[in-house]
Amino acid sequence: MTFRQLVLLFLSLQFLSPVALLSQAKDADLIITGGTVVTMDSSRAIYDDGAIVVKGDTIVAVGPRADLAAKYTAAQTIDARGKLVLPGFINGHTHVPMTLFRGLHDDVTLNDWLYKYIFPAEKKNVNEEFVRWGTRLAAAEQIRSGVTTFADMYYFEDAVAEETKAAGMRGVLGETFIDFPAPDHKNEAEALAYTERFLKKWQGDPLIHAAPAPHSIYTCSQKTLQDAAALARKYHAPILIHVAEMKKEWDDSQKQNGMSPVQYLDKIGVLGPNVVAAHCIFVDEADRRTLAQKQVGCVHNPSSNMMLASGVSPVPEMRAAGVPIGLGTDGPAGSNNDLDLMEEMDLAAKLAKITKMDPLALNAKAVVEMATIDGARALHMDKEIGSLEAGKKADVILISLDEPNAVPMYDIYAQLAYALKASDIESVIIGGRVVMRDRKLLTVNEPQVLAKAREYRQRVAASLGMQ
Amino acid sequence: MTFRQLVLLFLSLQFLSPVALLSQAKDADLIITGGTVVTMDSSRAIYDDGAIVVKGDTIVAVGPRADLAAKYTAAQTIDARGKLVLPGFINGHTHVPMTLFRGLHDDVTLNDWLYKYIFPAEKKNVNEEFVRWGTRLAAAEQIRSGVTTFADMYYFEDAVAEETKAAGMRGVLGETFIDFPAPDHKNEAEALAYTERFLKKWQGDPLIHAAPAPHSIYTCSQKTLQDAAALARKYHAPILIHVAEMKKEWDDSQKQNGMSPVQYLDKIGVLGPNVVAAHCIFVDEADRRTLAQKQVGCVHNPSSNMMLASGVSPVPEMRAAGVPIGLGTDGPAGSNNDLDLMEEMDLAAKLAKITKMDPLALNAKAVVEMATIDGARALHMDKEIGSLEAGKKADVILISLDEPNAVPMYDIYAQLAYALKASDIESVIIGGRVVMRDRKLLTVNEPQVLAKAREYRQRVAASLGMQ
Repeated sequence: MTFRQLVLLFLSLQFLSPVALLSQAKDADLIITGGTVVTMDSSRAIYDDGAIVVKGDTIVAVGPRADLAAKYTAAQTIDARGKLVLPGFINGHTHVPMTLFRGLHDDVTLNDWLYKYIFPAEKKNVNEEFVRWGTRLAAAEQIRSGVTTFADMYYFEDAVAEETKAAGMRGVLGETFIDFPAPDHKNEAEALAYTERFLKKWQGDPLIHAAPAPHSIYTCSQKTLQDAAALARKYHAPILIHVAEMKKEWDDSQKQNGMSPVQYLDKIGVLGPNVVAAHCIFVDEADRRTLAQKQVGCVHNPSSNMMLASGVSPVPEMRAAGVPIGLGTDGPAGSNNDLDLMEEMDLAAKLAKITKMDPLALNAKAVVEMATIDGARALHMDKEIGSLEAGKKADVILISLDEPNAVPMYDIYAQLAYALKASDIESVIIGGRVVMRDRKLLTVNEPQVLAKAREYRQRVAASLGMQ
Repeated sequence: MTFRQLVLLFLSLQFLSPVALLSQAKDADLIITGGTVVTMDSSRAIYDDGAIVVKGDTIVAVGPRADLAAKYTAAQTIDARGKLVLPGFINGHTHVPMTLFRGLHDDVTLNDWLYKYIFPAEKKNVNEEFVRWGTRLAAAEQIRSGVTTFADMYYFEDAVAEETKAAGMRGVLGETFIDFPAPDHKNEAEALAYTERFLKKWQGDPLIHAAPAPHSIYTCSQKTLQDAAALARKYHAPILIHVAEMKKEWDDSQKQNGMSPVQYLDKIGVLGPNVVAAHCIFVDEADRRTLAQKQVGCVHNPSSNMMLASGVSPVPEMRAAGVPIGLGTDGPAGSNNDLDLMEEMDLAAKLAKITKMDPLALNAKAVVEMATIDGARALHMDKEIGSLEAGKKADVILISLDEPNAVPMYDIYAQLAYALKASDIESVIIGGRVVMRDRKLLTVNEPQVLAKAREYRQRVAASLGMQ
């Protein structure tokens, strides 16, 4: 051994041995460690002192911290001790740009709201710029409340997609088809052309799933519905649609089609394993069987259905029939008025209980499932998101238990459904990227967005002759 | 003029002239200035750039800032620019020490919950110490969510009163009468003796209104109900009671008394202008007339009524009949599970709408009234609290509008009812005393209370053989 070799040996023993040890551990990018990990996997495993290992945008391991700490090393560690760690919440149905109309004429009938207020307000105000600012505001609000994926239906949806991606959020984003002139298209041909460009542009994107969104059977002709469905199938895209939301829709379908909205959509070939049906209030046993057989995903929107007095979706029966059913906030104007999915959990359980006059109708665990893994199933994304498991996208939220409403905690699911609030969400990770840390947003310029929202308030009010 | 006089004149011109000017202004202790002041006075006046002047524990002036700034000077000024300023919320019905049982066995029938879980848990755990820590925890949670006054029914209510006063909160605090052995009394004689001492002790207190609280007609004999009422009248105290909460209670009253719970309470002489009746679900037109005639205050608890599947109080009809009706969270265990009155506003409106299948059934302004001035009327305290007016107690909350869910704002009442959250409450003043400033609690040692709640979790769980 030469002197040089001796020196090298000495150095390696002194300095390199920790590296040598570490090199036995596998490389990762991020470890979230020490929290109570509520996986929502098929066994509903909960690790009291757990860890989640992330590489790139994907979870590579979930389990007890003691097991994983030795096996992995990562550039970034997030200490989750004393916190709950969950898969990000999934908002299965909304219209995010409408944040800028939040609270514009509530407490009116749906008909008055649409025709007297919202359609005129949209006609006078909605353009691509409006949609971008509305989406940014919604991203801030949704990230703050633990939503990592949302399904949207609006206009200029390509701009919604760009802003969603910029905010680091995951979206199933539907360009609306409606048989009257809309803010971004004059007719169906324009809608089809826009949507085909939109679908092509986002193919293969890790965060954005572009979709056609035929509005409903009462605003779209059979041809529009079928064209939108054909386009979706051509591009292996989902279809977003409002289904059986209103009694009038059901009555009219009976008159015009001799069958329910669900049966009509089935008959004309729209239903299938890529359809996401929002609301599904007026669905009888046969409809529920059809929805289950055709593997349609459904989204329950308790706030909206209560606020607009639409009716109550038979959620327990849908679950019993095997229909995947998630939760949605619906739009933040006229029908909610926020984007807080934790409130929808609370409401879904309480609404089912009072409707059935049965406190066992829908329990806390069920509504947490609806906000996570069942929401993923409803969006046909359960291979990708909805639970904390190796191979799934690293969409993870950390929830603080350091507020008076968070203690004591006897049951984790009850705490999530009934006691914890959006304001308890502390950090949010989407596809391995930290988008909120200790309640500080990292991907949205929040002061700028708030200022712009206030500007839009003045502009929209002026356009409608309000103060 | 001597040299000395000249010097004094010079000094007074240099330094004293502002004081001289100020001395023309009236002295006050606190001015809250620049916010959007939502008074909830009889004209429902709103001042966009308003001010509230406080001396001692009382409001001396409310109006436009420009008018009041020149007239008053105060030791302390709170800048409320960009914020909403409201009268503190009134939680009309709860059981605060039960915070320590939060989430202990939800999603069961009321019967199972009471007899299998809560009664055994209370028997094994509730003592004066438990009640003190539960009240402290509840004070932290309620102040954080903008509640300044609450009506409570529990045991060891004198300890509840001491802790409520220590936290600087206002309370209508009822010692429970129940015809079986309770944690703090073995029989009615003991309950009467305890309550009389309790009523005497707190007479004339500026924050605490002590009360007897006969639990209900199904847990108290006619004699207990009448004795409690007589005691209340002797001391000019309110009476807190659960009324017509359950279908079984109504059915049994029909069988046993040949009349509804409300008519029975009227017949035996309990109803009067000092009664606060929680729930009032099963009340028909005649009952509503009786409640109005007897000037009974009622408290609607939408979360609890939904969670326990009790039924839905006919709130619009109660309001139409002239019954003062407020809002309550009910206890934070089994029936909510939090103390967030803003959620009750949202729920009250949405529950009425869906129940009546009418989006106009109960609007945003109505539920804000229920949380403030109507809540005060329901507690028979509307001369004291419930609105921001000269002569009333200075119970004032400041609400931040600097979160994504708070913008844009087209309608203040809609924003309060449907979009703003407890977490937006920024500062809270009760009787002129600042108890929370910029979300920092000033009267409760929050870390200590959270730690103790976690300790109680272990103790209660062990007592019930849980993990």
